[in-house]
Amino acid sequence: MPENTPAARVSVLGLGLMGSALASAFLKAGHEVTVWNRSASKTGPLVAQGAKPAGTATEAVEASPLVILCLLTNDNVGELLATLPESLAGRTVVNLTNGTPAQARALSEQVTERGARYVDGGIMAVPQMIAGPHAYVFYSGDEEAYKEHEATLAALGGTRWTGTDPGFAALHDLGLLTGMYGMIIGVVQALALVRTENIRAEEFSGPLVEWIQAMLGIVPGIAQAIDSGEHLTDVSSLAVNQSAFPNFLETFAAQGVSSELFEPFQALLDRSIAEGHAADGLSRLAEMLKAEK
Amino acid sequence: MPENTPAARVSVLGLGLMGSALASAFLKAGHEVTVWNRSASKTGPLVAQGAKPAGTATEAVEASPLVILCLLTNDNVGELLATLPESLAGRTVVNLTNGTPAQARALSEQVTERGARYVDGGIMAVPQMIAGPHAYVFYSGDEEAYKEHEATLAALGGTRWTGTDPGFAALHDLGLLTGMYGMIIGVVQALALVRTENIRAEEFSGPLVEWIQAMLGIVPGIAQAIDSGEHLTDVSSLAVNQSAFPNFLETFAAQGVSSELFEPFQALLDRSIAEGHAADGLSRLAEMLKAEK
Ligand SMILES: NC(=O)c1ccc[n+]([C@@H]2O[C@H](COP(=O)([O-])OP(=O)(O)OC[C@H]3O[C@@H](n4cnc5c(N)ncnc54)[C@H](OP(=O)(O)O)[C@@H]3O)[C@@H](O)[C@H]2O)c1
Ligand SMILES: NC(=O)c1ccc[n+]([C@@H]2O[C@H](COP(=O)([O-])OP(=O)(O)OC[C@H]3O[C@@H](n4cnc5c(N)ncnc54)[C@H](OP(=O)(O)O)[C@@H]3O)[C@@H](O)[C@H]2O)c1
Repeated sequence: MPENTPAARVSVLGLGLMGSALASAFLKAGHEVTVWNRSASKTGPLVAQGAKPAGTATEAVEASPLVILCLLTNDNVGELLATLPESLAGRTVVNLTNGTPAQARALSEQVTERGARYVDGGIMAVPQMIAGPHAYVFYSGDEEAYKEHEATLAALGGTRWTGTDPGFAALHDLGLLTGMYGMIIGVVQALALVRTENIRAEEFSGPLVEWIQAMLGIVPGIAQAIDSGEHLTDVSSLAVNQSAFPNFLETFAAQGVSSELFEPFQALLDRSIAEGHAADGLSRLAEMLKAEK
Repeated sequence: MPENTPAARVSVLGLGLMGSALASAFLKAGHEVTVWNRSASKTGPLVAQGAKPAGTATEAVEASPLVILCLLTNDNVGELLATLPESLAGRTVVNLTNGTPAQARALSEQVTERGARYVDGGIMAVPQMIAGPHAYVFYSGDEEAYKEHEATLAALGGTRWTGTDPGFAALHDLGLLTGMYGMIIGVVQALALVRTENIRAEEFSGPLVEWIQAMLGIVPGIAQAIDSGEHLTDVSSLAVNQSAFPNFLETFAAQGVSSELFEPFQALLDRSIAEGHAADGLSRLAEMLKAEK
């Protein structure tokens, strides 16, 4: 247990892959952990590590001032809340279930109305990474409650506060994952393309990763242009990108790879040019996405 | 000039931003450079650096055994070839104009029929990077000609041979840029999303770049699965991705950001599941893209 962290009482509800990793990390940090899961069998390994099993969700919530929820969806969280006593006074509910900002805001209202404090979280890690050096969690919601429990929460990994709007942790989480999904779209399409010529994906993935890493260097410039609203560029104009892009779609077609993931990008470039943004850089596309579709 | 590189005669045709950078790099490496551009005015700065201006494209081609082409499109290259003498015997034509593998193969035939050797190239750099430590060029086509001139071509940056199919340099070039465009799609969408809540793009871009960099760590595993055809995963199944993705599309809609760039990804996930691949990892998507659309 880190020097300055007093042992705290924590309850973890939901012991799937992630919830189990969270409970285990709290135990390793020296905290008093109470666990509950819908299917009781999953408490076994954690009890073996020193956790106390609760017979019901209500018992688990009553056992600790800090209550961690990690179910599959926020709908499941809603269902679970419906089984708990009307008053949750004195509890801080930290919901680490994945969801949307709107869901987090709605749950915050429900929990707050019942006398508890609500903190939402977005976990930037897989279960195997929990408590390791690269794991961190975005938090948002009740700042006082967060500060009170931050040292305990640090057992899971880094803590990043994103603001008092309970939807902000989910927004940050979804934002990062959106970036990742774009990268995956590019990688999957690129590997499908080179495989059509019997180039090994493993051989191509080295230069591919290296190139994407290098090109991540343009992101700060794009971000700056978005913040300032100054989209003119001397690097890579939308006009240049628009005239290069048919080479891609043509090559996908010629090689027998579907263009479905990239056609909307051509359409967006075309629309940007039609609206007079030919000399702007790629940052303009973020504005185009915010305007009406 | 690097120790072991004898001065060579090189002609550069096309002195746009990129062609000028190429000619300049050859000059700095100590080579005898002849230059030609459709609009003669662009030869001035290079002549000042020591290049010889050619009055016509034919004169430029006749001045050197190594002939570099860098025009805007391969259609332009075709038009230029039509103005040259029927026999190009004794020349090696290295075409660094961007294009598709099919275009490179067609140009290779045309050039070869006229007695010259053809090498195609894909430049992985912007003009400012030419001759710098991070620039490199993919080459493909006539291997003997490439080997003969490789030391001279090294004046531009790293040299990466991709094979005797003249289309391969373009394929590698388009493959890497496809990966980059995917990353850009993700970044632009993510920044558009967080801006709807007045989160500064510059503030978000730090964690965003860091996260994409970390997630690039899954690419070698995806590549390995594609090569082996073993797509089962214990990391992140298509089923899990499919059930998470509506959170993204819902959040884009709720925040007033268009989903147009990401809807096809949901459709692809849905189709993959419908075809029985729920337990497979993201690598399966590369197969799905190769199947009929
Ligand atoms: N795994 C990851 O890599 C990862 C990473 C970041 C975030 N997350 C998020 O963490 C959360 C949990 O993920 P996981 O990987 O632990 O999933 P999981 O292994 O599938 O576990 C799901 C958990 O939710 C419980 N549950 C489902 N419906 C319930 C209901 N109606 N009432 C009570 N409990 C219910 C399950 O209980 P039973 O055992 O009774 O079915 C189980 O404990 C998800 O929101 C996920 O998106 C996961
Ligand atoms: N710039 C980059 O960052 C970059 C990076 C990688 C690859 N490339 C590729 O390099 C090539 C050149 O790009 P660039 O940036 O140098 O473009 P650029 O500055 O627009 O120059 C285009 C060149 O093509 C010539 N040209 C156009 N049509 C012609 C025709 N019909 N006949 C003869 N010459 C013609 C132009 O001559 P005039 O001066 O007479 O118009 C000019 O020299 C392109 O294929 C591009 O995709 C560029």
